[in-house]
Amino acid sequence: MARKPTSKKRRTGSRGSVVVIGLGRFGRALALELVDEDTEVLGIDESAEAVQALSGALTHVVRADSTKEDALRQLGVHEFDRAVVAIGTDLEASILTASLLVSFGIQNVWAKAISEAHGRILTQLGVHHVVYPEHDMGQRVAHLVRGRMLDYIEFEDDFAMVKTSAPTDIIGLPLSNSAVRSRFGVTVVAIKRPGEGFTYATAETVVAADDTIIVAGRTRATERFSELL
Amino acid sequence: MARKPTSKKRRTGSRGSVVVIGLGRFGRALALELVDEDTEVLGIDESAEAVQALSGALTHVVRADSTKEDALRQLGVHEFDRAVVAIGTDLEASILTASLLVSFGIQNVWAKAISEAHGRILTQLGVHHVVYPEHDMGQRVAHLVRGRMLDYIEFEDDFAMVKTSAPTDIIGLPLSNSAVRSRFGVTVVAIKRPGEGFTYATAETVVAADDTIIVAGRTRATERFSELL
Amino acid sequence: MARKPTSKKRRTGSRGSVVVIGLGRFGRALALELVDEDTEVLGIDESAEAVQALSGALTHVVRADSTKEDALRQLGVHEFDRAVVAIGTDLEASILTASLLVSFGIQNVWAKAISEAHGRILTQLGVHHVVYPEHDMGQRVAHLVRGRMLDYIEFEDDFAMVKTSAPTDIIGLPLSNSAVRSRFGVTVVAIKRPGEGFTYATAETVVAADDTIIVAGRTRATERFSELL
Amino acid sequence: MARKPTSKKRRTGSRGSVVVIGLGRFGRALALELVDEDTEVLGIDESAEAVQALSGALTHVVRADSTKEDALRQLGVHEFDRAVVAIGTDLEASILTASLLVSFGIQNVWAKAISEAHGRILTQLGVHHVVYPEHDMGQRVAHLVRGRMLDYIEFEDDFAMVKTSAPTDIIGLPLSNSAVRSRFGVTVVAIKRPGEGFTYATAETVVAADDTIIVAGRTRATERFSELL
Amino acid sequence: MARKPTSKKRRTGSRGSVVVIGLGRFGRALALELVDEDTEVLGIDESAEAVQALSGALTHVVRADSTKEDALRQLGVHEFDRAVVAIGTDLEASILTASLLVSFGIQNVWAKAISEAHGRILTQLGVHHVVYPEHDMGQRVAHLVRGRMLDYIEFEDDFAMVKTSAPTDIIGLPLSNSAVRSRFGVTVVAIKRPGEGFTYATAETVVAADDTIIVAGRTRATERFSELL
Amino acid sequence: MARKPTSKKRRTGSRGSVVVIGLGRFGRALALELVDEDTEVLGIDESAEAVQALSGALTHVVRADSTKEDALRQLGVHEFDRAVVAIGTDLEASILTASLLVSFGIQNVWAKAISEAHGRILTQLGVHHVVYPEHDMGQRVAHLVRGRMLDYIEFEDDFAMVKTSAPTDIIGLPLSNSAVRSRFGVTVVAIKRPGEGFTYATAETVVAADDTIIVAGRTRATERFSELL
Amino acid sequence: MARKPTSKKRRTGSRGSVVVIGLGRFGRALALELVDEDTEVLGIDESAEAVQALSGALTHVVRADSTKEDALRQLGVHEFDRAVVAIGTDLEASILTASLLVSFGIQNVWAKAISEAHGRILTQLGVHHVVYPEHDMGQRVAHLVRGRMLDYIEFEDDFAMVKTSAPTDIIGLPLSNSAVRSRFGVTVVAIKRPGEGFTYATAETVVAADDTIIVAGRTRATERFSELL
Amino acid sequence: MARKPTSKKRRTGSRGSVVVIGLGRFGRALALELVDEDTEVLGIDESAEAVQALSGALTHVVRADSTKEDALRQLGVHEFDRAVVAIGTDLEASILTASLLVSFGIQNVWAKAISEAHGRILTQLGVHHVVYPEHDMGQRVAHLVRGRMLDYIEFEDDFAMVKTSAPTDIIGLPLSNSAVRSRFGVTVVAIKRPGEGFTYATAETVVAADDTIIVAGRTRATERFSELL
Repeated sequence: MARKPTSKKRRTGSRGSVVVIGLGRFGRALALELVDEDTEVLGIDESAEAVQALSGALTHVVRADSTKEDALRQLGVHEFDRAVVAIGTDLEASILTASLLVSFGIQNVWAKAISEAHGRILTQLGVHHVVYPEHDMGQRVAHLVRGRMLDYIEFEDDFAMVKTSAPTDIIGLPLSNSAVRSRFGVTVVAIKRPGEGFTYATAETVVAADDTIIVAGRTRATERFSELL
Repeated sequence: MARKPTSKKRRTGSRGSVVVIGLGRFGRALALELVDEDTEVLGIDESAEAVQALSGALTHVVRADSTKEDALRQLGVHEFDRAVVAIGTDLEASILTASLLVSFGIQNVWAKAISEAHGRILTQLGVHHVVYPEHDMGQRVAHLVRGRMLDYIEFEDDFAMVKTSAPTDIIGLPLSNSAVRSRFGVTVVAIKRPGEGFTYATAETVVAADDTIIVAGRTRATERFSELL
Repeated sequence: MARKPTSKKRRTGSRGSVVVIGLGRFGRALALELVDEDTEVLGIDESAEAVQALSGALTHVVRADSTKEDALRQLGVHEFDRAVVAIGTDLEASILTASLLVSFGIQNVWAKAISEAHGRILTQLGVHHVVYPEHDMGQRVAHLVRGRMLDYIEFEDDFAMVKTSAPTDIIGLPLSNSAVRSRFGVTVVAIKRPGEGFTYATAETVVAADDTIIVAGRTRATERFSELL
Repeated sequence: MARKPTSKKRRTGSRGSVVVIGLGRFGRALALELVDEDTEVLGIDESAEAVQALSGALTHVVRADSTKEDALRQLGVHEFDRAVVAIGTDLEASILTASLLVSFGIQNVWAKAISEAHGRILTQLGVHHVVYPEHDMGQRVAHLVRGRMLDYIEFEDDFAMVKTSAPTDIIGLPLSNSAVRSRFGVTVVAIKRPGEGFTYATAETVVAADDTIIVAGRTRATERFSELL
Repeated sequence: MARKPTSKKRRTGSRGSVVVIGLGRFGRALALELVDEDTEVLGIDESAEAVQALSGALTHVVRADSTKEDALRQLGVHEFDRAVVAIGTDLEASILTASLLVSFGIQNVWAKAISEAHGRILTQLGVHHVVYPEHDMGQRVAHLVRGRMLDYIEFEDDFAMVKTSAPTDIIGLPLSNSAVRSRFGVTVVAIKRPGEGFTYATAETVVAADDTIIVAGRTRATERFSELL
Repeated sequence: MARKPTSKKRRTGSRGSVVVIGLGRFGRALALELVDEDTEVLGIDESAEAVQALSGALTHVVRADSTKEDALRQLGVHEFDRAVVAIGTDLEASILTASLLVSFGIQNVWAKAISEAHGRILTQLGVHHVVYPEHDMGQRVAHLVRGRMLDYIEFEDDFAMVKTSAPTDIIGLPLSNSAVRSRFGVTVVAIKRPGEGFTYATAETVVAADDTIIVAGRTRATERFSELL
Repeated sequence: MARKPTSKKRRTGSRGSVVVIGLGRFGRALALELVDEDTEVLGIDESAEAVQALSGALTHVVRADSTKEDALRQLGVHEFDRAVVAIGTDLEASILTASLLVSFGIQNVWAKAISEAHGRILTQLGVHHVVYPEHDMGQRVAHLVRGRMLDYIEFEDDFAMVKTSAPTDIIGLPLSNSAVRSRFGVTVVAIKRPGEGFTYATAETVVAADDTIIVAGRTRATERFSELL
Repeated sequence: MARKPTSKKRRTGSRGSVVVIGLGRFGRALALELVDEDTEVLGIDESAEAVQALSGALTHVVRADSTKEDALRQLGVHEFDRAVVAIGTDLEASILTASLLVSFGIQNVWAKAISEAHGRILTQLGVHHVVYPEHDMGQRVAHLVRGRMLDYIEFEDDFAMVKTSAPTDIIGLPLSNSAVRSRFGVTVVAIKRPGEGFTYATAETVVAADDTIIVAGRTRATERFSELL
């Protein structure tokens, strides 16, 4: 059985702390990342196993049925100003929980959607941010599958960053001489020498054969650049 | 019933085309993104509904049991050099399918893992790239939940990019005068005026109050920067 | 299989006609009552049996999955301005359907709720009228179980009408002489002689021993009156 | 666990108190309404959750299997003279329970039916009053869906009462001058000014533009009246 | 698919013919025995397999859902004056079917009960004869298990017949000399020589060592007699 | 939990006592009938409910898994010389249990069969007596359904006894004068005056109009006799 | 659908041919091995998939329910004199099938048992040979797990053969000089040079370092010998 | 509950002891055979029943979920150098467990495969020895079904040993005179007189009519020999 948070602990719900409901793969990774950055997290899940697996790792972790208003109020969830509905596959539980969080007036409610319809309902209920992990990762990985990119991220509709190995064309010259921007429509943002971390690229940076670089630019331009040998 | 690809179509399996097995949310998004970029895709799923939903959208889409060697060979899967196992939740089907792709000697096999153990098995079988969508998106969203960032991506262990609104401190000055790098340890990579797209930032760029910016730097530095008002 | 409404029939969606989704006991009674009053009704249900049972009885009756946007659009549901979600016990289907109707911008969406939480979600989604049949009938029957009333209806928080047999006290006198209002705080609204229908009561009406009467008044007053012998 | 009623409590079964078996939405609303009017209620349900939810709210509430004669006798159910079988969806449990209550010789047995066949069986068994909540509410709501009525109740086959906003035609005049009965075939029974409760209407009552009124009359007449603007 | 009886066949429902609903082990044995004695039988079962197994063996055998009034009327069941509800284990189907047969006004309705409660409900519904095969056979076999009887049947509360081997005491004498009635309180009703059938016993009958006899008498007397060696 | 029989009780397994495995309707009736006749009975069932229902009614009643040799030996089942396998519907459990009883060398094993195949297997295993309750009762009831008999039992292939009301033909005469045997081929065995028990019929017995009689004879003869008015 | 064997094919049931019922892993391997040795095999399985997988590989392969006497007779199974019940995990089906084969009087019935109880029942039914694959292979593999043996088989309670690599002690000498039998209690039966097959060993055989040998002897002696280096 | 091995017991994992995971029929027989030969065995199964059945029979036997790394490490499984995955039918559990054992670096991992695909996956994961009990026993039994052999084992592709009764041809002569090898291509390896054990055959051995013999040779030769009368 999970610990019942004492009245003292219940003050967790102060500014900055986050309640994460649903501790599956998505919720767990999210909660652990928050704790890593010194954010207090109250984790809630219906499964004893999921709760036990994170016991000690989060600030508080409690087994409760998040579809019941009483259960959430007893845990002080209504006093939080940030909440994440990370419930995996149970559409009904996700909606019932999100509905309660919205009715509590919590200012920032995030929720994971597992389909377009699910996302539309969450938005209609008043959830502030809807996330589609499977869909987004599918899109992102598509770029890696196709070719030689090492990582890819699209920040906005037509602006992406790509991690790739440096093409022959720009090796051995300071970036200011490579004319990367005019020739390829991209900008080299950062560079990583073998065995080191990334550092910001400047006009003087000289790219070597084994370097990994990050370039920014319009989506198609970054793609074409990553296909250069 | 799905169309049986004719012998002509089977030449799909040439260099550059990709077979995507499992057309759930992850596989579907991945496959559609590939097609958007003019990559030929053979989509395979066990469910008639999933196949029908993508019929016409992918180069080929076939209903088949990917755990059977015969079924895969009939579709020419063994002639592809890029394959993605995007099977959602059925651990056994994922492993049986990945095992076959590896035994075919396909050069680039990607697979989605739903747990650490699943990922370890895929690696032991010889899968080349293992992806954890739920876990990775959980980590990424954690940064957005915490604060004022609009998007966040970590390219490597200690190098991240963050989309955020511009803090007061750097508004109204050319970036060369803001000393962003020395004061905050981050570099402004790109900037987006309201109603426009992102463009690459230069030393002369002057950030305005409503602009959205992307900054790069060490993880903690980007985080601290995004918390400035 | 249900008939696919022709394009002509689809003009059903004009002002005044109603779409009823879910043809269980509640939806069926509702739809039949509408048809009895010359209102055109498009009935939709997922079950072939439910559709067949009403085939011929409603203007149109179609088997379709109302949780799919395509299915509803093909039936022209988005062109109606009155819709009832009468889905019985499947919370998820009720919510998915209601969400679509709201997103279509239908002006009057009614929905049956099976619990308080369900009702709250329907309201948050933007449903205009939420009905609780089991709950409301439970309250109404409570009054009949207790005593001698024949029917009971509460129009507002403290104003009810009660059908009951006439107490000895008021028998044989014109109502103007019985002082019903001053003595019991209720007004006799209508009267029914054995074998006849109800007629409106006037000051001259004389109540006989076997008559059934309807009285109006504050809730408690009507109750006390119905307990007189 | 529910409290076992002590021998003292068992005397509950005196005249006037009611046993309600099945504490779903219908039974719960019914039982609470009875308690609100100072009627003693013994609530029985098979589910621990349903019992706990009403613990304290009813005079007695007990978890028991109402299909077993022993269980009912131990609770003194055979000594009641009013009983309600409010069992939701389990046809078999409803029939087994009603059969026992009838065999006890209880004088007033009410039961909720979920279908015509169910209702016929309950009547054949000897149940005195059979109620169809879903069906009745469906009929009632049909009138509201169609148009401008705010509430509708049919007391007998051709005599209904309707709550509606006042049509222009009768505004500003004493009712005695509006000739409502002769022109529309209905009588104004009660009137509600904004912010007040309903009061009984008299010949002198003057209806204002924002008033809500209740009119009585033949079904079609009340309907037509409610459609006036 | 079972044959739909033609209108001609429907006249089956004349006096003397029997409808048997439920063709499990009990119903099947009953129906076949009736046919063996030249009684016309309409057999009805929900299962295609059960219907097919008796196709050709009964006068008519039809697959139908006997819980639906329409289905029974289409088969002319309401015109029979003898009906047997031999439905095996589905309490609900048994009750729904019996309720319909009673509502048709069939003069002789038999039904198999699987428990005391089931039997009570069938009786309350108006079924004329209720049978308990498992219970009755259990009682009957009890007598055989205990001892040396070969068969046992109790016709009334204290009058039984027993098939047993003849005890030494009465062998070799005419029955008139054995004083069976005075010494043992039983009467020898019939006797069976090895290899022959039973014949009625008379005063002159001489019982031999290998004969099987049937004796009648009070229950305990027949039992004691069967224990003699 | 059932009582564990003490070592003293285990001596139950002496001559004359019976073990009954399976306490459903058949086993229960059988076991209770045995106890009524002062036979010691050890009842065994897997279900706690079945065991509790008979607790106190049988000599011993124990919850155990009769398919396990250890469980049966611990209860001393191997020392009984009469055993009944009354397991209801679980073919596998019936066979496993019967196999063990036979392997124990118990001298009289009875078993209930639910189908012909089941019966054949029980016989092949070495069970001594196989009983078919549903089938046998079906046959017996068939005779009652057809006509005017009150009870019917067939002792052997062509020798039956029938309880029926006396036909006009034989009323008012001593049996010796009615020539029942020569005219109808049956013999009147016993007679029951209203309000009394059955007594054996003699040549002097005069049958009255309201008497119930039992007649014996060839099957068809008893049937025809019972159809006389 | 499987081919229905023609009347000509039905003569398969002649001496020497075998019917194999159950085409899982055990039955399939058994049937294929028989066919490899020119034995005619009729394979029967309930699953269309299993039948299709062997279609063409066995003499005949048919989909049928082997628990039904009719089905087996139609296939002529009763005319075979060798039958194998290789039904995998369905105890009931295995018993029903074996019971039928025994009742047909087939002279050699083999059956696979999945537990001791299953084996006892098969023997009681009259099955001639009972096989326990999982148990027997478990015992055999135990010897290989422990040590250096390559294969192990125990022919009788204390006589085994072991395949192993040759220990140093006996290398380089003719077997007649190695005194293997007197020193180790085993006899070298066969020898296999790298790249060749086994040949029978004689007194002149000289064992080389890379040879594999088979030795026979008492169980413990063969084990100890295989542990020599 | 199984005993938790103490730290002392955990040293079990020394050279020579074996961990057996999965205690079904295969695992149980294997483990018991190992213990019989004085090998220490740690048995692990998920089922309490399986663990209890072997409690006391193996060196240690523990209930644990072998698909969890923590559970295996706590039991010291990673310190063993011999492990058997004998998990019966749960493909996923078998693969997860085998994957962990391989990742521990255990030197000899054996695993039972239930299909070809399963076997391929186990091999790809790095399992050293894969066993197919059902398949191998099926092949072996095929030889016995066909004819007169008493046992059969194939050591290598074309070298088998057969236990059979002695054919007339070789009876009464010393083996050196029977020319068995030249005439039949087989060698008599061992001989068993009725009531005795097997002993190694020599040139002087004289085979008698009731003797059982083991012969070795090429597969077909041993088969033909066993068919001699």
